[in-house]
Amino acid sequence: MKQFNLKTPNLVEGKQQLKRQEILDYFNRTFSLDDELYKTLKDEKAFYMRADQLRHPLIFYYGHTSCFYVNKLVLAGLIPAPINPAIESMFAIGVDEMSWDDLNDKNYNWPSVDEVTNYRNTVKSTIIKLINELPLTLPINWESAFWPIIMGIEHQNIHIETSSVLIRQLPVEMLQNASFDAVYNTDEQPVQNELITVEGAEMQLGKPHGHHSYGWDLEYGTYNENVKEFKASKYLVSNAEFLEFVEDGGYQNEQWWTEEGWSWKTYKKSEYPLFWHKNGHSYKLRLMTMLVPMKWSFPAEINYLEAKAFCNWKSAKTGKKLRLPTEAEWYRLVEYSDVKDATEWDSAPGNINLEHYTSPCPVDKFSFGDFYDVVGNVWQWTESPITGYPGFKVHPLYDDFSTPTFDGKHNIIKGGSWISTGNEATLHARYAFRRHFYQHAGFRYIESEFEPKIRIDSYEIDEEVVISCEENYGEDYLGFQKYPLQLAELLKDQIENPADKKFLDLNCSTGRLAFEASKMFKEVTAIDTSARFIRPAIELQNNGLLRYVIKDEGDLQLYKDVLLEDIKLNNNTSPLHFLQDDAMKLKKKFSDYDVILAFNLLEELQNPTAFLSTIHERLNDGGTLILGSTYQWQESVSHKDNWVGGVKKNGEPVKSIEGISDILSSHFTIVSQPFDLQYATRKSSRNFEVNSSEISIWRKK
Amino acid sequence: MKQFNLKTPNLVEGKQQLKRQEILDYFNRTFSLDDELYKTLKDEKAFYMRADQLRHPLIFYYGHTSCFYVNKLVLAGLIPAPINPAIESMFAIGVDEMSWDDLNDKNYNWPSVDEVTNYRNTVKSTIIKLINELPLTLPINWESAFWPIIMGIEHQNIHIETSSVLIRQLPVEMLQNASFDAVYNTDEQPVQNELITVEGAEMQLGKPHGHHSYGWDLEYGTYNENVKEFKASKYLVSNAEFLEFVEDGGYQNEQWWTEEGWSWKTYKKSEYPLFWHKNGHSYKLRLMTMLVPMKWSFPAEINYLEAKAFCNWKSAKTGKKLRLPTEAEWYRLVEYSDVKDATEWDSAPGNINLEHYTSPCPVDKFSFGDFYDVVGNVWQWTESPITGYPGFKVHPLYDDFSTPTFDGKHNIIKGGSWISTGNEATLHARYAFRRHFYQHAGFRYIESEFEPKIRIDSYEIDEEVVISCEENYGEDYLGFQKYPLQLAELLKDQIENPADKKFLDLNCSTGRLAFEASKMFKEVTAIDTSARFIRPAIELQNNGLLRYVIKDEGDLQLYKDVLLEDIKLNNNTSPLHFLQDDAMKLKKKFSDYDVILAFNLLEELQNPTAFLSTIHERLNDGGTLILGSTYQWQESVSHKDNWVGGVKKNGEPVKSIEGISDILSSHFTIVSQPFDLQYATRKSSRNFEVNSSEISIWRKK
Repeated sequence: MKQFNLKTPNLVEGKQQLKRQEILDYFNRTFSLDDELYKTLKDEKAFYMRADQLRHPLIFYYGHTSCFYVNKLVLAGLIPAPINPAIESMFAIGVDEMSWDDLNDKNYNWPSVDEVTNYRNTVKSTIIKLINELPLTLPINWESAFWPIIMGIEHQNIHIETSSVLIRQLPVEMLQNASFDAVYNTDEQPVQNELITVEGAEMQLGKPHGHHSYGWDLEYGTYNENVKEFKASKYLVSNAEFLEFVEDGGYQNEQWWTEEGWSWKTYKKSEYPLFWHKNGHSYKLRLMTMLVPMKWSFPAEINYLEAKAFCNWKSAKTGKKLRLPTEAEWYRLVEYSDVKDATEWDSAPGNINLEHYTSPCPVDKFSFGDFYDVVGNVWQWTESPITGYPGFKVHPLYDDFSTPTFDGKHNIIKGGSWISTGNEATLHARYAFRRHFYQHAGFRYIESEFEPKIRIDSYEIDEEVVISCEENYGEDYLGFQKYPLQLAELLKDQIENPADKKFLDLNCSTGRLAFEASKMFKEVTAIDTSARFIRPAIELQNNGLLRYVIKDEGDLQLYKDVLLEDIKLNNNTSPLHFLQDDAMKLKKKFSDYDVILAFNLLEELQNPTAFLSTIHERLNDGGTLILGSTYQWQESVSHKDNWVGGVKKNGEPVKSIEGISDILSSHFTIVSQPFDLQYATRKSSRNFEVNSSEISIWRKK
Repeated sequence: MKQFNLKTPNLVEGKQQLKRQEILDYFNRTFSLDDELYKTLKDEKAFYMRADQLRHPLIFYYGHTSCFYVNKLVLAGLIPAPINPAIESMFAIGVDEMSWDDLNDKNYNWPSVDEVTNYRNTVKSTIIKLINELPLTLPINWESAFWPIIMGIEHQNIHIETSSVLIRQLPVEMLQNASFDAVYNTDEQPVQNELITVEGAEMQLGKPHGHHSYGWDLEYGTYNENVKEFKASKYLVSNAEFLEFVEDGGYQNEQWWTEEGWSWKTYKKSEYPLFWHKNGHSYKLRLMTMLVPMKWSFPAEINYLEAKAFCNWKSAKTGKKLRLPTEAEWYRLVEYSDVKDATEWDSAPGNINLEHYTSPCPVDKFSFGDFYDVVGNVWQWTESPITGYPGFKVHPLYDDFSTPTFDGKHNIIKGGSWISTGNEATLHARYAFRRHFYQHAGFRYIESEFEPKIRIDSYEIDEEVVISCEENYGEDYLGFQKYPLQLAELLKDQIENPADKKFLDLNCSTGRLAFEASKMFKEVTAIDTSARFIRPAIELQNNGLLRYVIKDEGDLQLYKDVLLEDIKLNNNTSPLHFLQDDAMKLKKKFSDYDVILAFNLLEELQNPTAFLSTIHERLNDGGTLILGSTYQWQESVSHKDNWVGGVKKNGEPVKSIEGISDILSSHFTIVSQPFDLQYATRKSSRNFEVNSSEISIWRKK
């Protein structure tokens, strides 16, 4: 298979005039490898068989990768119109596992293999023409016209591997080796695994923008983790080692399994790994296109749930705390083992990129110093659910590549397999699957005293909350500065020597003003009545990262990442406490403040009049009370008797500011004339709300 | 009573240095007259008796007029604080007839008469001081500090009359004449009524701003009516003339009564007018403080419902079309009779302003040329429900003087009674009461072939509709021009020779753009799917006037009058048709247009895709289609399959503008790059919505 060497190209360095040819070669080799893969299907019938009852037949994947090029290039404006709308519609969606009713055969009327082959060829010619004709300047980056072309090639590389997994689930009699004949076909004496110590280190994960090779959006960003010392198994777990678990009744004993794992095991009635075929008392091993006598020296290929159960069982057996590595621990292993990245190889150091075998091979075949198979052979499951690194941005041409998997249910696999090509074979590669899913994936266990730090960093999607997030941390709209920054400036203007003062924000919402205030005041308490709203503030404070999704138009959405460092808040701030509490029933300890802010709070209170009548009790003498309100009184919130104004009293209209003055005058003097603070709230890309909040500033007598 | 001559002062002309004294005199005389009125109550008990079961006892009115001064002066900022908040709260509201549960005695704990008298004296001193000290410059107008003082005096004059009506309903044994001893106490031979012709004339009603005497807000504005010739009864209807109706079974015969009238009659079990007291087979007449033998020559004092029943009965008896006059017909009678206004009298030409009697007098006592009692003696009911004249504006210091009566249920009384003083005695006076209510009021009937033109001109209060009214006809907010005017400019820029072209506005809402278009195009059709929204447009087109109420803050509201002439639309416009129709199911006749506008329509349609696919059928070749949309697709409006964009199709995001282009491209070419039209929508004084509607312009191939 050496002819298909599929190293992803350097998009930054090199001679511009050679780069076009290099990309063209990469495209042609990928396309040809894809063609070759489908030649393992002996006849057309195999194209229409379900390898997995919840997945489309291979004919879908045969068409899908070509469709993808077209759809992305249309989206990018590089080709003017669809090539074959009927095919492109049929082959666009449905890559993933579905629910049973999506797959009703009646809903599909697949075209013939010839039709799809013709379509593939048309697309191929179109892309070749495009590669030859598009203006090309280095570096090629996210914004370059060549990016969606590379995206299509890498997408095809992914599907070469995932299709190979599907082929591995078709009946062997329908398959042939074709070009995939470099199968490692002998078995060797299984090795005894052992644990080797890896010292801890401060790890920085994430691919820098401007890196020389193509990356999917979720590879970028920066994430730091202090990896503690651990011990890792020298080898991937072999079929022989895994057999101990099977033979010890591992699949019959619920105690080793997570709840999710046991639920899966029960549903699938699994008793051993999927690619093991039991024949009486002996096992055979299913490879991609053939069934061979069990290779005990090969890595066990399992899903995460099985790997996790194995670790739990083995922990109990050995008295050691064994588990899978996190993503950061895997990178530590890479660093420890001094693994070169794919773009620096002359020849692959492991069983990867089809450079050695068209199958797995024994776990002791490729050494990287102390360890074996740090990359290659089979993917390695980790404990880490996938999520974007802080600073993650969605690529606009493929906005659902990553984010649907940021749900805490998709775990990362690392290291690549024998058939991982292109981007898949790079160290930055980050792929993730549902924990019950099968890929060419196995595992290495580690021993560690530390519970893995599980980051989900899911996206806030509560509609009202994300509107507040954008209002606090997003862009300025319609020429209005964000209201928390206007308030921060107000505090700067109005409060002398804030560094000596305690500040209370009584309606902190998603918290921006409180963060800003913590740059100025001695101490900041930020209270909101709603846990929904305060949660993002706390998340930003604790994790340095806040993610939310805002509405674009219709169903379309935009993904936003806010980093604490973006708002210059990682250093030099005072104690800042976010707390959920009811401003009407504040605990006694919330007293002795020098400055209290109640911005747009009155209209949210059940009794604003009572609030104003007692707020002086929280404030030190000479302290400052800052009120802001849009006076949007609602009977659903407060009884009309409790409104401070906006009603007739004794038949005369009472403006809210007059009502406020009446109530406050016994304990406060007004500092200056009330004035309006106008700010914009984004509801969608084309819809905004502008409020004018009247600010009044009061000094306690 | 001559000493109480209460002519409302000239606020425009005269010597400035004398004006202060003139106002002070007017205040003192009014206050003294009010004092005198309450001296008709023999003892304190009378203050606490209910003259009318649905009205407060007189103690309330005794305190109310003084409270009113204070509350208005506080509101105007002329006195810093309430004088006696407890009293001012208790006496502020409750002038009108109430429902029974508002009047539960337990809810009231009235102060003693002495306490209220003391309060009145304190207020009186305060006002005198204010009149002496306030800066005074002529003219005194709406904005002058003296206006609320005159307002308070005129308010007190009104209550002198309305309290006199309540006193008239107390038991006579509790009353004495006191200063009100100029009762007309003899009866005279009743005169035979007759009808006299009054020629028609073009009448202009409404008091000009800048008029020399005080006016309540509803007196201002301009209203034109072409009054047709009519005949009017020479005299007000006397008790003798009304007796014929009573004796003919008028109160037993439903056919003479309006539905409202019969309902009232049945509820009250009335058999003759309220102030007639039947004693065996003879009647006595109740005057303000005494019961006297029936004065058959006096005007019949009845409510509107009784007067109307009388006219219906008399029409049937005489075969003539008899009814009450409209307000405009009454003014025509004033003009015909050359009646001088109160401010021009030396002596009152009728039984008015307490200048002659402290009771009514025979209907043939005061002649005004051919007619008697054109003003004075008793008020005269009219057919006209009260409403503001076009151009009406609420006075900010008394925003509920008028508008609560603009409901079609309050009819105007004109001409004043023997006890009408101050503003009440002027020709511009406009008072109105519920049709079943009693004042010192009678009537004159007229014969006319013409159905009276009844204007209600009520205020649009539908929250969504008034927001659109303000968006179309109101102010500009946040620096954004109103969207219909932005669209009108767009039409000017984009459409050549509009005077030759037919224009279709498919989402006209409350119609401003259609009006603007009618200045340019040969013909305009304006369609909206909602009758609620199109109604104000039609009202403006037909009546030249549109009224609506917008939200200020809380419950507070602002009243808006829009005149067709304000938007320069009374001349030179083309045919303009407003129609309610569904843009998805337009009748065939809506075709052959040269320009079609669909602004913010797509998002309101059940199937925007179908709409775009067929809209070319309505347009002439070469015609222009202008689309605007905020793309706020909602599943509650249209099924997602019908959205033109804002969704993923074949897995790729499709922006709405791309979807529009796809659909329109078979019949249209795009004229220029789409662009955004931003506009603001006012929701309340402090809350706005800003939308950004994407405009695209298409030429039909």
